[in-house]
Amino acid sequence: MSSTFYPPQRTLMGPGPSDVSARVLAASARPTIGHLDPEFVGLMDDVKRLLQFAFQTRNELTIPLSAPGSAGMEAAFVNLLEPGDTAIVCQNGVFGGRMKENVERCGATAVMVQDRWGDPVDPEKVAAAIAANPNAKVLAFVHAETSTGVRSDAEQLCQLAKAAGMLTIVDAVTSLAGIDLQVDAWGADVVYSGTQKCLSSLPGIAPITFSADAVAAITSRTHKVQSWFLDMNLIMGYWGEGAKRAYHHTAPVNAIYALHESLLMLEEEGLQASFARHRDNHTALASGLADLGLELAVAEPWRLPQLNAVMIPEGKDDAATRSRLLADFNLEVGAGLGELAGKQWRIGLMGSSSHAVNINRCLSAFEAVLAS
Amino acid sequence: MSSTFYPPQRTLMGPGPSDVSARVLAASARPTIGHLDPEFVGLMDDVKRLLQFAFQTRNELTIPLSAPGSAGMEAAFVNLLEPGDTAIVCQNGVFGGRMKENVERCGATAVMVQDRWGDPVDPEKVAAAIAANPNAKVLAFVHAETSTGVRSDAEQLCQLAKAAGMLTIVDAVTSLAGIDLQVDAWGADVVYSGTQKCLSSLPGIAPITFSADAVAAITSRTHKVQSWFLDMNLIMGYWGEGAKRAYHHTAPVNAIYALHESLLMLEEEGLQASFARHRDNHTALASGLADLGLELAVAEPWRLPQLNAVMIPEGKDDAATRSRLLADFNLEVGAGLGELAGKQWRIGLMGSSSHAVNINRCLSAFEAVLAS
Repeated sequence: MSSTFYPPQRTLMGPGPSDVSARVLAASARPTIGHLDPEFVGLMDDVKRLLQFAFQTRNELTIPLSAPGSAGMEAAFVNLLEPGDTAIVCQNGVFGGRMKENVERCGATAVMVQDRWGDPVDPEKVAAAIAANPNAKVLAFVHAETSTGVRSDAEQLCQLAKAAGMLTIVDAVTSLAGIDLQVDAWGADVVYSGTQKCLSSLPGIAPITFSADAVAAITSRTHKVQSWFLDMNLIMGYWGEGAKRAYHHTAPVNAIYALHESLLMLEEEGLQASFARHRDNHTALASGLADLGLELAVAEPWRLPQLNAVMIPEGKDDAATRSRLLADFNLEVGAGLGELAGKQWRIGLMGSSSHAVNINRCLSAFEAVLAS
Repeated sequence: MSSTFYPPQRTLMGPGPSDVSARVLAASARPTIGHLDPEFVGLMDDVKRLLQFAFQTRNELTIPLSAPGSAGMEAAFVNLLEPGDTAIVCQNGVFGGRMKENVERCGATAVMVQDRWGDPVDPEKVAAAIAANPNAKVLAFVHAETSTGVRSDAEQLCQLAKAAGMLTIVDAVTSLAGIDLQVDAWGADVVYSGTQKCLSSLPGIAPITFSADAVAAITSRTHKVQSWFLDMNLIMGYWGEGAKRAYHHTAPVNAIYALHESLLMLEEEGLQASFARHRDNHTALASGLADLGLELAVAEPWRLPQLNAVMIPEGKDDAATRSRLLADFNLEVGAGLGELAGKQWRIGLMGSSSHAVNINRCLSAFEAVLAS
């Protein structure tokens, strides 16, 4: 027979989950109530309002999906795409590749725009792909590539798509609340995120927002959405504006408590203050890493303040270093993903983890481990 | 600006979520760690073992999916079915209809076996459907229909399918841990459940198990699984036996803590003891309801002890009664679903909610509200 699990108290500075505050953990542990309880329905309205604030949007269909960010990505594609459609997909890291998988599993065609892992998406290549594929329905790209630590210019990419009459799908899993993300001002159509990055809530929920154009595309589909669980035509009946809150599935009630609390914390701090905090802490970390002789992998203008890709120094063992950081300092940093495995570490400064205490812990731990 | 949400302390006697114990809530609120942390990987192994115990199976691929029971249903269908396949689907309530939706969205054909809502699935009709559709790949049915409170004979239905060389998909969302469910002895192939019913854990996770035959069907598919998020070929890389724990998506870490704790509680009580508790408490509730003149809707041999469908007495207002139970007694009972809306209430005695205290609360609340 086994026994209760008592997790160690880690300092989470990988690519997510980030440190979850005691305040959010406490919110998550309040008594479970029913997903159709009037009190819960009231909370749902407040969560929607707070997500609109975080996404900088007035989109009515702005909700938390009951599954992780990967399901948010899938929801975006299966709802917008129908068999035979074409989507232009930008890839400059792992998650663009996952987008391609999603497009193809919808019976649609993915036209790929490739950039080097570690570079931003090149708008000129995107413009050329749009010109060559004027009938493409969707342009999809990752705003903040979690696998490389690179920001792309979401505003410019959305403008290119809008000018061509295309819908956009924007992966904001790592960007939401960490860097500026103006869904309405930039004209993005479907934008999804995760709760375990710069919101520092429990992992497992995907905030997502749909523009009026996206909703129109979804409600006028010829084919049913291939996923029943992610079919927004059905989910709108539970989460939609003025909806009857019709039963669709059982919402993850306690995870919504946690998300609500983390969004309150964001509202109290303010979006601009959160962006400034992420930026300033990144600057402090980068300076300390430079003092240790550690080099950042991404060119300065495109660095994500919340996810710092660091070149592994010549002669240092990737896994052994991370194991020692974990064992001796309770510090989690991320490994490289995909073709960057073994070449880079990823140091997250996301949400609650973006704090001077974490920077100090991280720098002293690296100093000790790299010296030995 | 909004403020922290403090939920009321309900007594949850609807169709789920059920009462979550303080012990499980406390487990869920322990510090979040990474989904690839060695400590978490150890916990994953223990959760798998405990789920095998609960499902009464030695299936290696027995895991918690990172989404609610409806996603468990979808995972079963999208992994087993390919375009052009045929599935025989039994419907005697809401969830058989949802199965049909899932089959059709896979590009497969659903042959429906219909029974009256409130009756069990009729094995003779199933035998006839199997005889008429010898090339069907899958037989799918609901073990414990949450919408009607009816048990079907899962053992017999699995035997019919096995004899014809078909795979079975068994919805055990409401049955797991509440009534006997012998995955191996009955020869069921894909069986999924939810955490918010008789396990009394947080809503949002779908325990699921796959037989060796099911795994063989999945690994030898001609078409990719249409859902990337639910593709078991990929999920096996994270949860599978001897897997490298390759990153697929970020697991809902704290919800897994909660599930682990609820499974420990089940192991400590013992499966047979849990079944007996559910049975005895059902008997006590039924007796008390009879004293109040309330009639159970389901014939005695097929009643689910964990979900009691009660006929709404002539002249009593459905919504007004439930509102008073909630407002004056903090008691949640379920409304009727689908064609039973307005005709029945559903009183759950699931997991931690299956307790004498709840029965007493429920009976005195109904007595007071119905008398006025």
